[in-house]
Parts: sequence; structure tokens; C-alpha cells
Amino acid sequence: MKKKVVVIGGGTGTFTVLSGLKKYPLDLTAIVAMSDSGGSTGILRDELGVLPPGDVARCLVALSSSDALMRALMDYRFDNGNLKGHRFGNLLLSALEKTTGSFDAAVGKASEILRIDGRVVPVTLDKVHLVAHVGRRVIRGEERIQMTELNGNLKSLTLEPAAQANPKALAAIRAADLILIGPGNFYASIVPNLLVRGVAEAIRKSKARKVFVCNLMTKAEHTRGYSVADYTNAIEKYLGGKIDIVIYNNVKPSPSLLKRYARENDTLIAWDDLPQKRKLIGGNLLAHTDTSFRKIGTPAKEGSLVRHDSARLAAIIAKILCITRA
Amino acid sequence: MKKKVVVIGGGTGTFTVLSGLKKYPLDLTAIVAMSDSGGSTGILRDELGVLPPGDVARCLVALSSSDALMRALMDYRFDNGNLKGHRFGNLLLSALEKTTGSFDAAVGKASEILRIDGRVVPVTLDKVHLVAHVGRRVIRGEERIQMTELNGNLKSLTLEPAAQANPKALAAIRAADLILIGPGNFYASIVPNLLVRGVAEAIRKSKARKVFVCNLMTKAEHTRGYSVADYTNAIEKYLGGKIDIVIYNNVKPSPSLLKRYARENDTLIAWDDLPQKRKLIGGNLLAHTDTSFRKIGTPAKEGSLVRHDSARLAAIIAKILCITRA
Repeated sequence: MKKKVVVIGGGTGTFTVLSGLKKYPLDLTAIVAMSDSGGSTGILRDELGVLPPGDVARCLVALSSSDALMRALMDYRFDNGNLKGHRFGNLLLSALEKTTGSFDAAVGKASEILRIDGRVVPVTLDKVHLVAHVGRRVIRGEERIQMTELNGNLKSLTLEPAAQANPKALAAIRAADLILIGPGNFYASIVPNLLVRGVAEAIRKSKARKVFVCNLMTKAEHTRGYSVADYTNAIEKYLGGKIDIVIYNNVKPSPSLLKRYARENDTLIAWDDLPQKRKLIGGNLLAHTDTSFRKIGTPAKEGSLVRHDSARLAAIIAKILCITRA
Repeated sequence: MKKKVVVIGGGTGTFTVLSGLKKYPLDLTAIVAMSDSGGSTGILRDELGVLPPGDVARCLVALSSSDALMRALMDYRFDNGNLKGHRFGNLLLSALEKTTGSFDAAVGKASEILRIDGRVVPVTLDKVHLVAHVGRRVIRGEERIQMTELNGNLKSLTLEPAAQANPKALAAIRAADLILIGPGNFYASIVPNLLVRGVAEAIRKSKARKVFVCNLMTKAEHTRGYSVADYTNAIEKYLGGKIDIVIYNNVKPSPSLLKRYARENDTLIAWDDLPQKRKLIGGNLLAHTDTSFRKIGTPAKEGSLVRHDSARLAAIIAKILCITRA
């Protein structure tokens, strides 16, 4: 029996984790946040009334065993006219949702078309938006929250209306041997999963080991100055329970790269402040090249971004599970 | 060895022919006109600079052995926002053309995704537009020509720039046992195939029997008052050679249906004027229900359009080839 791993997130970080883990003999489930409201996804939500396809589409590509062309097609972004900015994978999911009448069926059919190893599960099938109470202001929508200064002012983060968990997500969490939370945009992609009714409780009650993969860089508007301990405390606050294992990076990227991030006030996450009484796994998690999601066939922008290395991350998780590559 | 049948056309008529013929053990090739410039296809040509996907997409669906959902997806038309009017199948082909860099490769990949029995071959891979010299006017673009009164005034119909034939189209024509021309929009979907350099000549030289399937109704602006003989003479003019067999309908649709067409000045094609010295096959070719391309799952509009019956048409062609259903 393959070990059951559940990855909770949604964005590029989850894509990276899945890309690495799929090379191991695992039963993989990606649970994906459904509060994205920006870009192509936001336009499709507004204009077609569909559920947000973007993060689900990217996770499907990560787990696809289709050829490179098929994956490149999914990632193709129209560059002109009224279609400009729309990613083909998003249009596929939205057209399937319209054709089948359900996002769940759409994900199922897309999984079949893309020959997925594992499962991609929307955390909820309700139409929800992320809402932040910041000081006295109420910021609605993930895209606007992304640009809002939250540091020290975030009173609450909720989904509106209150979201019911997708039963498939709860079932995967209950059955998991290991639950991986992160990396990713903390308040926009990771935490929203835990705001869905029943999800945090299911994680707390699951017999699975709970692993938190800490980000590499802070996000100036949201997590300024956060250390590994701060991130861990923050995720435990939303989880309402303990993380068993924290995986963190302890190697510095090049000064020139850090300088570029510094222009946006994003800084390397400090590992001199680590959480106590948990298993800690520190190591060099940096990708030498940008292994984030990009158009297949285009050269990687070497060192243009500080990203997790999918293979190193997967190797650490495999070690925790005592398995080797297929 | 399966008999090789080449169907030349592009629009709904070709969809009907292919839908019927695919139930027989035949080696089918659809050769598709590439001068469409209307609707979703026209917008994609203008905005993305792609080749016209619409007719190719419909022929792919006709020959697809995928499930009903996959075919419904291809036919899904976005109904809101900036995507409004775009058919998903068109977006698939255009995104594949952009991703692969070639329309030919796009058709190949789409054929694989849709599990095609047979081949769909664009008649040319050049970017061309249909141009009509009408009296002293020059009308550019298939969409505009559709709305132009051609009767008695059409001096010439050409493609601009001059189009080279797709070698795959010529090869299929050369190897064919039977070549079927029509039915379909005569000057907009059928004749444009014969305007591509080398196509008419290849058909003339092919050892295949040449079969013309005459339309059911005239199109007021283009073929007012045409009889079966007029259509046959017209196609032979563009072909520069003889048709061997003419298949025509000799049954009247209901008066109420004809009345609806009469509002647009479209009339039933007269079979009292038949071409001479050719094999003639007349019969009831009318579909009882609208068998034209429509969203799968929606009820057929009974008798709303005068259309060929795909099964009857296919049965006649099978009889010519002395084959039976698989």
C-alpha cells in the first residue's frame, strides 16, 4: 500500500511540492484553496460565475503524466485581444464546469484528460471570497488582500459566505499518513484552506503526521519580519493544533538576488528563531534555477526568484516516510 | 484494406456526412476549407493571427470517438463577458497552434486528444481570405461574401494570397477510392477548396470516383433558383472536370418548413432539372430532426431546419462502395 500524502495549499509552492513528490510511489492528494480572485481566474469568476480554476489547473498540471505539449497547452496564456491573459487550463476547467454543470465533475474530467497520478481536490465547492478585517477596514477579495498591509493590523480573516468543506477533502485528510501544509502565499493561499468549516478540525483529528514547510522569503505586506517560529506559530493558530515537523531552509541565496527582493521589502526568513518542541528539519531548500511553474520550453530564469527546489523538498518528505524513489 | 474516402467541404454539411460515414469501416479524410472569417473563428484570426479553427474543430468532433462529454466540451460556447461567442474547440486549436507553432501540429494533437478515427486535413496551411469580384466591386472575406448578392454578378472568386495546397490533402486525394464534394455553403465552404492551387487538378487526375452531394435548399444571395443541374454545372466549372455521380434529394419537406425558408427567399432545390450523362442517385435525404451540429444533450429542434440525414446519406455512399456497416 502506498503512503497517503495530502498537500494543502494552492499556488506555486504547491506546484513545486507536487512536482517533486510525484516521482515517488505515493498516493497524492492536493487540497486547493478556492478563494483566488485575481487575474484570469478573477475575470472568469466575475464574467462566467464559475469557481476559481487557476490553482486547481496548476495542480493538475503538476500531477499530469501527459506529454510536455499537453502541459504546455494547459499553461498557454493568450497574449492578444479579448482573450489576453487567460490561461488555457483555466478556460478548460471553466468550460468543463459549464458543460457538466459542476466544478467537481469538471475536475474529474480534466484529471482524466491530463492523466493525473493522484487527486486534485478543491477544499470547498462553495463560491466564497476571502475577507480580511484590517484595523477598522474590511477588505474583500483575495486579490485586494494581496495588496493590503496586514502587518499588526489583521483582526480576522474569514471566508464569505462561510464555506462547507468538500467531503473529498475531509476524507483525504482523515485517511492521510502525512499532511503537508505550505509552502505558499501564507494568508492568500495556505490559511484560506483552514478557514473552511471542518478542515482544521479534520487535520487536528487525523492520525497523519502534520508537516509544515516554511516559506523562504517574507511578503512585505503580510508577514514582515516573520521568522520560522513566527510562521509556525501563525499556522498553528489557524490550525488550532500542533504541527509535528517543521521543514525550513537554512542557506542564503546570493546577495544580488536578496537585493532584488529587498526592493520590495521582502527578506529572507530568519532561521535563528526556530519553534520549540517540534521536530525541525533544516537544510538547503533553494532551487538553483527557477523551478516554479513556467511555460515549458522556455529557458529557466536562472536565479531570478528564490524558490524551493522540488527534488530536495520531496527527498526530505520521502525520508520522513521512509520511502525511496520509484 | 478499408476503402479510402475523401470528403471535401468544411461546414455543417461536412459534419453531417462525416457523422454518418464514421459508422462504416472506411478510411476517412476530411479536407476542410480554410477561408472562414466569421464569428468566433474570425475574431481569433484577427486577434491572434491564427488559422481559422472553426470548421476543422467541427470535423474533429464528427470523427471523434471520445465520450459525449468531450464532444460537448468542444462545442461549448462561452455565453458571457469577453469570451462570449467563442467555442471551446476553437480555443483549443488556436492555443495548440500557438503552443506548437504550427496549425498542422495543432490538428495532430487535437486529433489525438479527441481520439479521431480518420484524418482532418486543412486544405491549405497558408493564411488566405476569400475574395469575390462582384460586378465592379471587390468583396474581401468569407463573412462579407456570405452577405453579398452574387447572383448573376459573380465575376470571379479567388483566394488571396494564392494558396498552396497542404501536401497531406493532395496525397489523400491521390490515394482516394471515392471523393465526395459537398453538401455545404456552396461559394463559402465548398468551392474555396477548389481554389487552392493543385487541388482541382489532383481531383481530376485521381482514379477515385467523384461524387457530388447536392444541397437541399438554395441560398438566396448566392444560388437563387439553382437546380440540381445548375449546382452540378457550377461545381464542374470550378473543378475543371466531370463529376461521376450526383446524389440529390427528391422529397419535399413540410410546407411550414419551406415557408420559414421562403421568408429568407431560400427555396427547395428543383430536381426536375437534372444533369445529363452522369450517374444520378435521387432519394429522400431529409433528416426528420435537425441532425446538424448542436450541443450534445440538448433536444433536437424537430424539423426546424432542412438538413441532410447523415445515416441515409452514408448508406447511399456505402452502397456505391459496396460495403456494409461495421
